[in-house]
Amino acid sequence: MSVSNDVVTMAHGSGGRAMQQMIERMFLAAFDNPWLNEREDGARISLADLSRQGDRLVFTTDSYVIDPIFFPGGNIGKLAVCGTANDLAVSGATPAYLSCGFILEEGFPLGDLQKIVTTMAQTAREAGIAIVTGDTKVVQRGAADKIFINTAGIGVIPTAVNWAAKSVQAGDKVIVSGTLGDHGAAILNLREQLGMDLGVQSDCAVLAPMIAPLRMLAGVHALRDATRGGVNAILHEFSDASGFGICIDENALPVKEAVRGICELLGLEPLNFANEGKLVVVVAPQAEDAVLKILHDHPLGTDAATIGEVTEHPQVCLRGALGVVRQLMLPHAEPLPRIC
Amino acid sequence: MSVSNDVVTMAHGSGGRAMQQMIERMFLAAFDNPWLNEREDGARISLADLSRQGDRLVFTTDSYVIDPIFFPGGNIGKLAVCGTANDLAVSGATPAYLSCGFILEEGFPLGDLQKIVTTMAQTAREAGIAIVTGDTKVVQRGAADKIFINTAGIGVIPTAVNWAAKSVQAGDKVIVSGTLGDHGAAILNLREQLGMDLGVQSDCAVLAPMIAPLRMLAGVHALRDATRGGVNAILHEFSDASGFGICIDENALPVKEAVRGICELLGLEPLNFANEGKLVVVVAPQAEDAVLKILHDHPLGTDAATIGEVTEHPQVCLRGALGVVRQLMLPHAEPLPRIC
Repeated sequence: MSVSNDVVTMAHGSGGRAMQQMIERMFLAAFDNPWLNEREDGARISLADLSRQGDRLVFTTDSYVIDPIFFPGGNIGKLAVCGTANDLAVSGATPAYLSCGFILEEGFPLGDLQKIVTTMAQTAREAGIAIVTGDTKVVQRGAADKIFINTAGIGVIPTAVNWAAKSVQAGDKVIVSGTLGDHGAAILNLREQLGMDLGVQSDCAVLAPMIAPLRMLAGVHALRDATRGGVNAILHEFSDASGFGICIDENALPVKEAVRGICELLGLEPLNFANEGKLVVVVAPQAEDAVLKILHDHPLGTDAATIGEVTEHPQVCLRGALGVVRQLMLPHAEPLPRIC
Repeated sequence: MSVSNDVVTMAHGSGGRAMQQMIERMFLAAFDNPWLNEREDGARISLADLSRQGDRLVFTTDSYVIDPIFFPGGNIGKLAVCGTANDLAVSGATPAYLSCGFILEEGFPLGDLQKIVTTMAQTAREAGIAIVTGDTKVVQRGAADKIFINTAGIGVIPTAVNWAAKSVQAGDKVIVSGTLGDHGAAILNLREQLGMDLGVQSDCAVLAPMIAPLRMLAGVHALRDATRGGVNAILHEFSDASGFGICIDENALPVKEAVRGICELLGLEPLNFANEGKLVVVVAPQAEDAVLKILHDHPLGTDAATIGEVTEHPQVCLRGALGVVRQLMLPHAEPLPRIC
């Protein structure tokens, strides 16, 4: 299998020799770990090992259909590892094991697949996550757009950690870990060929190392990573689950100048833009300073800021730059399809 | 959301209100269980509960891209539950929890989605499996073919069970649990509009209840369900993993007359045809009768038969109807794309 000029063929998804070869030479070589190397259909993981890390398993999944598949700051493979790892981490878990399902379009360049797989392997390795089981399907040309990836993930929550959207309390502070909308702006600029020299990259990153020390703190009530739907979607989730409201201060929102520019130009709202490496943390007021310090001490959290607080009145509101408060509705649809 | 005439729109995958409504009214309503109803991004599962069932977690995944999505004996949703549940069950585990990722094409009828989701919920409920976490993505018209589903699954293997392809031994008997190639023949007939009145349905079924009593027996060495690539692919997996060969007796293969007919007509081999509800079991000779009895006693195993045995010489062979032995190669590609 010479990777450079070759493309994915129907045979690569057939269960025959061509598929075996691709699995061995590309996936097993890149993801190399004892579970995968067992070559059983499922990975077998010691429950005793898991139980030493905590008392609850977390199980989550996401499919990734982003277009374009390569973008400043990452590619669909990096996103597929980071996104699912982050969903585990915001539950309080240590991300440990991922599954990986590829749906490939016939004719997709094997060289591009190799780049994506290599990035996945590297991202997983750096985050201490093992890709332990997988699946590959190939569909005819035109039946899928290049490549879709599903990852499911499992991790363990330490016994003392109990983060949940329903634990959000009136008076809590709402903190974001950095600038909003970088991923959405980078993809929009690339896809719509706006041609702006934004200098903005996707913020796609594994957040688990920044989240880990938060697990030692009392007063952390709930975490989310603000992906599709942006921070706004998360604020509504917190409000719906807790029965309280949230009031956000527009002046306090950390937004890069270039992202603010693209939003003003197109009449879009950074709060609705997707991120792939930004936390929303809701904390008791007495934990605010400690949380901000932990975030600021991490390279991914230098722009962390308190952006608002939880209110008794069950509505999500934005206090504008001039002090006028308006209700922040959840849009019917996000402005950008296939953002993740 | 009136389901009858409506279709999936980009808004259903946007993270906004339209997506929330679809998740609530369709997915949560159908899959209804305490983990999903927590409305957290990941399902939280007690490790103490898991540890009471055994000592090893099994984690596996498959994506389903079958075409057509509705077929005699099932639909893509039934397949997505059965396929992953069966991968867990053949490892010796009790299938317990599934994740579910939908990739939907814009314009896909919501009525069809409702049928698929209802079948998934029913299949899972009958098998005692909970669909505990999920994800929905929508891509533009033409960027995917109708619907793709990924399921990942977890289950627990009881401490005494140690099935593995590498445990296969020379002298072992090779047993299949029923007629071969029903799924492949049913899909081929439908898709290629051969218009044969085969009376053959897909054998798509959850095999866990038939497998469970096998876990009490000594002498069961390895199990697989023979899906994509057919029984032939499984024989090669067993041979590769164990270093032994396998010799199959053509006269002993249970194949429905109609399936044999379609194979002869098209020059295809039932051993290469996909199944979605058939086991291949490798057992020590002294366990053969007990295994056959357990299979015969289950409605899905009435046609179970010993089809061959494991040999010292590391080759997969077929003894033809006239006694001539020939090597059985793994084909480069399976004849039927998008069979699962």
